Amino acid sequence: MSVIINLSIFPIDKGESVGSYVARAIKIIKESGLEYNFGPMSTSIEGEWDEVMGVVNRCFQDLKKDCDRIYLNMNADYRNGAPGRIKSKVTSVQKKIKQQ
Amino acid sequence: MSVIINLSIFPIDKGESVGSYVARAIKIIKESGLEYNFGPMSTSIEGEWDEVMGVVNRCFQDLKKDCDRIYLNMNADYRNGAPGRIKSKVTSVQKKIKQQ
Amino acid sequence: MSVIINLSIFPIDKGESVGSYVARAIKIIKESGLEYNFGPMSTSIEGEWDEVMGVVNRCFQDLKKDCDRIYLNMNADYRNGAPGRIKSKVTSVQKKIKQQ
Amino acid sequence: MSVIINLSIFPIDKGESVGSYVARAIKIIKESGLEYNFGPMSTSIEGEWDEVMGVVNRCFQDLKKDCDRIYLNMNADYRNGAPGRIKSKVTSVQKKIKQQ
Repeated sequence: MSVIINLSIFPIDKGESVGSYVARAIKIIKESGLEYNFGPMSTSIEGEWDEVMGVVNRCFQDLKKDCDRIYLNMNADYRNGAPGRIKSKVTSVQKKIKQQ
Repeated sequence: MSVIINLSIFPIDKGESVGSYVARAIKIIKESGLEYNFGPMSTSIEGEWDEVMGVVNRCFQDLKKDCDRIYLNMNADYRNGAPGRIKSKVTSVQKKIKQQ
Repeated sequence: MSVIINLSIFPIDKGESVGSYVARAIKIIKESGLEYNFGPMSTSIEGEWDEVMGVVNRCFQDLKKDCDRIYLNMNADYRNGAPGRIKSKVTSVQKKIKQQ
Repeated sequence: MSVIINLSIFPIDKGESVGSYVARAIKIIKESGLEYNFGPMSTSIEGEWDEVMGVVNRCFQDLKKDCDRIYLNMNADYRNGAPGRIKSKVTSVQKKIKQQ
């Protein structure tokens, strides 16, 4: 569980509404069984590097079937030996905000 | 409320633990009164362009006080005449997932 | 000259070819007089924080005139007291590659 | 040659100067034989999806050897049946700027 990524992926050739393509990616993320957090701009996914990159690959391959132009943005935060961070990062910062 | 951004900002010159700096940025986002969604990798903020960019500016100016190297990553999604999207984008995609 | 950003900005509601919109943004970057480096995926711009963010703002305001949905991705690297980095970062890494 | 990515990868646990780690990543990119464009904030790499993602994987695995915290930012632009874009995207936009 050493990597968390933030993933956005959507077609550019399908006009203004891309929600149905985003939904297909989220479905693949869900089916991976990895911990995830779905937000308004991106989805965070936590796992080992190979697992997480496998999900990114499956999302891309799925959209590629019927999209001629795809944009993907990804940030990754790797931390050696730090499991369960998708929740702990949020609670740790929330504690610090209260202490300010 | 036409823009949602996804913002990550943290120092690179402070070693591995940057949570206290992230907490300072979140506090500024909170105090802005704008709708926001705090996640493990970034914080989404919704508002008019000038409001949102004002918050980004205040976060940067605050970290700049005591950080010599700062990294910032931002994605913005502008949609003309589409208020309240920080929630509606999530619920709209969730509906589409159920329909799959 | 303490900040370098990497900027991508393009409409999502105009179909697959967005080059003419990208060209409008580059023109604004050029006219700013700031040091810049135009690449296949983004444009790097170097200056003081306020100058660089002013350029980002002008690019957005220009596309907003005729685009109903705009996506923007930006990374910023701030380093206190480090001018002329848009060139020096590249040459410094090139030296390190030779030493390997 | 259907994908161009923009890649930044660097450790967060090694202090302010990360150039030697960036140099290691660039060396791996060079050795891949793929077309690339090294800029001040990121490196663009063009190839087939699997080739490009293989390079990203090798860069990560290399830094992981001696870095305990790594940050990675990646944008990808996929276009069906469009080879040689790392150069053509730049020249196409440059032409459009002249026509303005």
